[in-house]
Amino acid sequence: MTEVIFRAAVRADVPAIVALLADDEFGAAREAVSEEVDAAYWRAFDALDGDPRNTVIVAESAGTVVGTMQLIVIPSLSRRGTQRLEIEGVRVASTHRGAGLGRRMIGWAVDEARAQGCKLVQLTTDKRRVDARRFYESLGFTATHEGMKLPL
Amino acid sequence: MTEVIFRAAVRADVPAIVALLADDEFGAAREAVSEEVDAAYWRAFDALDGDPRNTVIVAESAGTVVGTMQLIVIPSLSRRGTQRLEIEGVRVASTHRGAGLGRRMIGWAVDEARAQGCKLVQLTTDKRRVDARRFYESLGFTATHEGMKLPL
Repeated sequence: MTEVIFRAAVRADVPAIVALLADDEFGAAREAVSEEVDAAYWRAFDALDGDPRNTVIVAESAGTVVGTMQLIVIPSLSRRGTQRLEIEGVRVASTHRGAGLGRRMIGWAVDEARAQGCKLVQLTTDKRRVDARRFYESLGFTATHEGMKLPL
Repeated sequence: MTEVIFRAAVRADVPAIVALLADDEFGAAREAVSEEVDAAYWRAFDALDGDPRNTVIVAESAGTVVGTMQLIVIPSLSRRGTQRLEIEGVRVASTHRGAGLGRRMIGWAVDEARAQGCKLVQLTTDKRRVDARRFYESLGFTATHEGMKLPL
């Protein structure tokens, strides 16, 4: 595999990230990709940028964004004051799937969680993505919880 | 039901919140309750306090904390830059269960999500709590996702 680096996203990455979010069987219907990136995406990036507990990560290979995920550090009183890391919005470019990039991304996130003193990593995955559940289980995650959503 | 008010927790609420977290079939084994509240809880509260995207809420009735939950606002690029509200650590005192307090708490959180411009509310609930899933479903949540955890 070509060398891949992981880094925090910068504003100029937003169009590539949006394209990745849409490059997905469910995301295609949920995201808006056009010549001009919708203002809502820029607003969301600006809201995230500078928050030390919210980081959009990109995986870059040969100058191209080929993966993304969002890492959220959540301090919490529960479980004896355990800080947890939540992973959201994991996407790997369709051109780069099946080559172990997702595994390296999650491994990188888990290392980051440890480095930040988190004692728990959590994420939810759509039940329709049966392969995703198996993938996360192979990395040591267990599906102990129901992930419940309420769109407003 | 006695009048209940919802408010952001203050430092002095920490012992009561820890007691609530432990007042639970699974929490009892996970939390440390003693005369002196473990330093980790104070550190966790101090880490949360002042973060505009992290708020521990308490439900107070007649001067006593009878419920708690943590609300986390998560800006995100996915779903067209949708900001979401995550609910963690929901607990109702055993003395106050079955009287609709949980329903009011979640309703309050959903109103708060709307007020903050969130388009999605999410939470995970332990699969062993079968009543909890039904409870959230009755409030409009759907269990579309697997909630996966990796303790470190």
